[in-house]
Amino acid sequence: MKAVRLHGYGQRPVVEEVSEPQLTGPLDVIVRIGGAGLCRTDLHIIEGQWREKSNVELPYTLGHENAGWVQEVGGAVTNVEPGDAVIVHPLVTCGLCRACRAGDDMHCENSLFPGISTDGGFAELLKTNARAVVRLPDGVEPKDIAAHADAGLTAYHAVKKAARILYPGTTAVVIGAGGLGHIGIQSLKVLSAARVIVLDRSEGSLELARECGADETILVDGSEIEAVRERTGGRGAEVVLDFVGEGGALGDSIAMLREAGTHYVIGYGGVLSVPAIDIISSEINVVGNLVGTYNDLAELMTLAAEGRVTLHTSTYPLDAVNEAMDDLEAGRLHGRGILIPA
Amino acid sequence: MKAVRLHGYGQRPVVEEVSEPQLTGPLDVIVRIGGAGLCRTDLHIIEGQWREKSNVELPYTLGHENAGWVQEVGGAVTNVEPGDAVIVHPLVTCGLCRACRAGDDMHCENSLFPGISTDGGFAELLKTNARAVVRLPDGVEPKDIAAHADAGLTAYHAVKKAARILYPGTTAVVIGAGGLGHIGIQSLKVLSAARVIVLDRSEGSLELARECGADETILVDGSEIEAVRERTGGRGAEVVLDFVGEGGALGDSIAMLREAGTHYVIGYGGVLSVPAIDIISSEINVVGNLVGTYNDLAELMTLAAEGRVTLHTSTYPLDAVNEAMDDLEAGRLHGRGILIPA
Amino acid sequence: MKAVRLHGYGQRPVVEEVSEPQLTGPLDVIVRIGGAGLCRTDLHIIEGQWREKSNVELPYTLGHENAGWVQEVGGAVTNVEPGDAVIVHPLVTCGLCRACRAGDDMHCENSLFPGISTDGGFAELLKTNARAVVRLPDGVEPKDIAAHADAGLTAYHAVKKAARILYPGTTAVVIGAGGLGHIGIQSLKVLSAARVIVLDRSEGSLELARECGADETILVDGSEIEAVRERTGGRGAEVVLDFVGEGGALGDSIAMLREAGTHYVIGYGGVLSVPAIDIISSEINVVGNLVGTYNDLAELMTLAAEGRVTLHTSTYPLDAVNEAMDDLEAGRLHGRGILIPA
Amino acid sequence: MKAVRLHGYGQRPVVEEVSEPQLTGPLDVIVRIGGAGLCRTDLHIIEGQWREKSNVELPYTLGHENAGWVQEVGGAVTNVEPGDAVIVHPLVTCGLCRACRAGDDMHCENSLFPGISTDGGFAELLKTNARAVVRLPDGVEPKDIAAHADAGLTAYHAVKKAARILYPGTTAVVIGAGGLGHIGIQSLKVLSAARVIVLDRSEGSLELARECGADETILVDGSEIEAVRERTGGRGAEVVLDFVGEGGALGDSIAMLREAGTHYVIGYGGVLSVPAIDIISSEINVVGNLVGTYNDLAELMTLAAEGRVTLHTSTYPLDAVNEAMDDLEAGRLHGRGILIPA
Repeated sequence: MKAVRLHGYGQRPVVEEVSEPQLTGPLDVIVRIGGAGLCRTDLHIIEGQWREKSNVELPYTLGHENAGWVQEVGGAVTNVEPGDAVIVHPLVTCGLCRACRAGDDMHCENSLFPGISTDGGFAELLKTNARAVVRLPDGVEPKDIAAHADAGLTAYHAVKKAARILYPGTTAVVIGAGGLGHIGIQSLKVLSAARVIVLDRSEGSLELARECGADETILVDGSEIEAVRERTGGRGAEVVLDFVGEGGALGDSIAMLREAGTHYVIGYGGVLSVPAIDIISSEINVVGNLVGTYNDLAELMTLAAEGRVTLHTSTYPLDAVNEAMDDLEAGRLHGRGILIPA
Repeated sequence: MKAVRLHGYGQRPVVEEVSEPQLTGPLDVIVRIGGAGLCRTDLHIIEGQWREKSNVELPYTLGHENAGWVQEVGGAVTNVEPGDAVIVHPLVTCGLCRACRAGDDMHCENSLFPGISTDGGFAELLKTNARAVVRLPDGVEPKDIAAHADAGLTAYHAVKKAARILYPGTTAVVIGAGGLGHIGIQSLKVLSAARVIVLDRSEGSLELARECGADETILVDGSEIEAVRERTGGRGAEVVLDFVGEGGALGDSIAMLREAGTHYVIGYGGVLSVPAIDIISSEINVVGNLVGTYNDLAELMTLAAEGRVTLHTSTYPLDAVNEAMDDLEAGRLHGRGILIPA
Repeated sequence: MKAVRLHGYGQRPVVEEVSEPQLTGPLDVIVRIGGAGLCRTDLHIIEGQWREKSNVELPYTLGHENAGWVQEVGGAVTNVEPGDAVIVHPLVTCGLCRACRAGDDMHCENSLFPGISTDGGFAELLKTNARAVVRLPDGVEPKDIAAHADAGLTAYHAVKKAARILYPGTTAVVIGAGGLGHIGIQSLKVLSAARVIVLDRSEGSLELARECGADETILVDGSEIEAVRERTGGRGAEVVLDFVGEGGALGDSIAMLREAGTHYVIGYGGVLSVPAIDIISSEINVVGNLVGTYNDLAELMTLAAEGRVTLHTSTYPLDAVNEAMDDLEAGRLHGRGILIPA
Repeated sequence: MKAVRLHGYGQRPVVEEVSEPQLTGPLDVIVRIGGAGLCRTDLHIIEGQWREKSNVELPYTLGHENAGWVQEVGGAVTNVEPGDAVIVHPLVTCGLCRACRAGDDMHCENSLFPGISTDGGFAELLKTNARAVVRLPDGVEPKDIAAHADAGLTAYHAVKKAARILYPGTTAVVIGAGGLGHIGIQSLKVLSAARVIVLDRSEGSLELARECGADETILVDGSEIEAVRERTGGRGAEVVLDFVGEGGALGDSIAMLREAGTHYVIGYGGVLSVPAIDIISSEINVVGNLVGTYNDLAELMTLAAEGRVTLHTSTYPLDAVNEAMDDLEAGRLHGRGILIPA
């Protein structure tokens, strides 16, 4: 089958023929890919940012945001059968460790992360397991919701944490209305009654933010901290969801927090740097976010089927992966890029 | 009356005569000081670290950790009467803002912080209000528990947050077994069933930690991160309570966390600096801590009266404030220093 | 001034002249009533259901759902001033007990409940205190939102608890789309992403329910338990909000619960009777609800000002109180009845 | 192999030869029983109380509280191997439904309950699965901790819920210091800092309660409600853990609650009957409890290995099951009865 393989850090992946994945365990599931989302993390992987964390052996197949149809299942699989349309949770988990048993799939002690630490879904077929596949509601097409497998899930997971401390009258600031942010905004409007203020460097993204339900938008131009303070009676926001995590976003986030407020770090690339006296004198919190749980993904599919969270995507054939990457790097890719095997 | 007043940053306070505080509002309470704790924050104030945050006008009276007996009350005070032994919550709060109404006294929108932003308790009399005074159980002496008003409260408040995510089989690391840490260790043993590992640079402090109930102790000598990883199956600790917040403590704390673990910042002085990729790839949290609520203080008084949390203190006459500060700076002060007006 | 006074249980109240309330404490606030809601509880009081619980001395003035304008304030009141439009939290609380300090105004150890245990708001003036008054946003008229002071607050408070366990894909059943229920439905749609199924004996109420956002409605005709089970895959609902609490509603509620589901009791009049084996074998919960907190009321005012929760009311002059009661008893009163002093 | 089989409701089970269980699925685990606890539920099963709920076909093997050594494992089992000493979680769960994925093993949509709905552990061998077995720490003998599989787990699970609302200064009342209650008391002392008051009809049980750490004990003699009210300043207890659930215990529990208090139903047999006005006017809660999660059981094993929760047991050979049942019915069985295959 065809697959997009990374042969060396610092160089673009190549599309080549590889052998098809095989069932080896009773809970294995092989999925025929209907669509696979392209993520800024794919660029970060190529740059080598994940080299030591993933420890993956090159070459391998990229693609950690996948949906399609069940092709084949192991002997003990009871929750899906061949032909079922599914979205694929990014982690292959064991189901037996404490984290799995507590629902924290992300922290499974025996997990694989296809597309990060083993072969992923920029290919015709993907091997995952029964614990990772969420059956799609009738009428939902894999390629249309593939981007929820990582972008949507990560945004929803962070928003779900934030929603616990939001109530009518509070303010949630969203930094970055891109691939993740535009889902985060919709999720905020569905899960909370807070006012949502969205910040971005691009007027186009702010326009998208407003379509997604943002109550207010602010162009990032150096005066954004002051702008947020002004709109919050000088006090700052209870919640800042930082979908950027580099440039000035991390510092801005801390500076925009109200006393006892919480900064949700979702984007990455930069370094968070805060004097401890500022952390304690305002009693603020910083919360990391890593994809989300299987149950989060199932909830998000409910919202997608209800039409309450929708995706903005552009599709490319699998062969055009490098063109898609060019567009992503150049800021020409509107919405999430989805690779589709022929 | 006699009071310890700061006349200029960078110079030691002086003991001098000032006029006595007067009742001005119906909820005011004047307390005759029985004991006032000396805190590293007093040194930080003198250094000027709080200059901009407190915005206090010099000269003023230091002392934010106070206990004594009610001397006089305003016309609307119903919860205490003259003669009652009380510990004084560090903040004078309004009781009418959202934070007060939610129990978050620390974030009152109209608060005063005696000893930080207005005259404090290094004096014969202190002016506070009805919302700040906790009546002491019979047989509890103000000078014996004064250090709970800030040191104890802050440690207890942070431990109470941490206890929510601790369960049998988890590990809580305590960095620093000093004035706050030794109360933190005792609180952890009372409020949780976790294993408590204590780190300190001093063998004497580790000895105190063991008396306070630490399950294990580790001398901080550069190999402490590895030592914690070894004792946690290579995974790190679910909770790190950082009572130091400077030197290597902040970095050590992050490095000792397990996936999804939480770093409670209590001590301060240093700068927390973490790449965002480390925050998200491990989904860790950083939680600031600022004193605690009135209800926290009342709970701590229950534990003190039951003998489940005890204090290590050294007493000094109020006149000897600078000798006490010398001892604190030089590391000669064992336990918390308590100033007692003649 | 004119007031509606109850002189004996089992007999209708009379409108008569009484002396005006006077400020006695520094936190007292006197409110000129703009509108006071009539509640089924007023009928229950007359029937004597609250006789022992309230222990109030007759005659006294009814009316526990009040809004108006501040007339006069005590010397220590800082949060409102004469002329401010306010809604009045139903309890006069002390602000000093553990419950007040934790935000649980309903459980204040030193509270008064005007209209239940002391003189209420079916009058020209009402005496309450600074802790009870919520300033209204500009443009909000007291008579239009008075019903939120009890009906709205109680519904919102219960929904807020329920929202914590609801997520996309879950079902909340609302029993009773009347004075409280129609606010509960709107609050559910704002605070949660759950499917809302509303049950009522009246087609008219179900019509109102649909206007308020109900996803599905079921006429209560004896087959309602089966109908809910059918629409939940045979499993029952995660949440049942019982705004009726008499007739068959209590039994229906338990029978409609999913395993681990929760029954929120809001209406009353009947007796809940469940074999313990049914409680444990399904691990279900029953949660009582009593008005709500001051902060709940402030949040609800935000939603009211945003137009996200609206009230259906009918107004009567204060003199027509008994006509309003007749209409309520006869089921002729559409929406909440609001009494307005001339 | 030998097994204790129920052939008809209302008649005692018989010990007879049956064929050994066989592996059929890749996650199956067969356990050689080291000890199986006898529970009041076994008597309730014989009486027919569970007939409709379990829908089990007779004859079948009783025994839902099991520990032993792994005998044989299916091909996909990775967490245990033959020879491992294990305690067996009472439910065989699927790991794939929402409840399993959220850690709520008790509410698995595809579960079996050996000893209730299929063959249990009053036998030489028990068939369960990989998701049910908890490896025992070194030096822990299956027969010594078997009673934790149900009695211990259920008590611990309920206490863990209660501990979330207990803090220093609160009161937890325990009704019934028997097989479950004596573990509940120890768990309360480990997980919370509340005062624990224990009620029982037997002085012997109260003696055991004090050994387990009860702070106060009260003999149930008709004045127990008043006694609890007296010891709680007339207000009642924040928490009542009802390990009896019949006789007067259910009514007593409600009557002993403080405003906003919670009644945890654990024992069963009786009917809970409460006027709705009492539920809402005090805003009380009733919480059902059904065994506990796998993670709960693992935590309890940690406490058992640390010696912080210990069991009082009496052992019987498997053949003497009816003698043990006689002793249990007659109140002669001290601690939990454990059946041991020859």
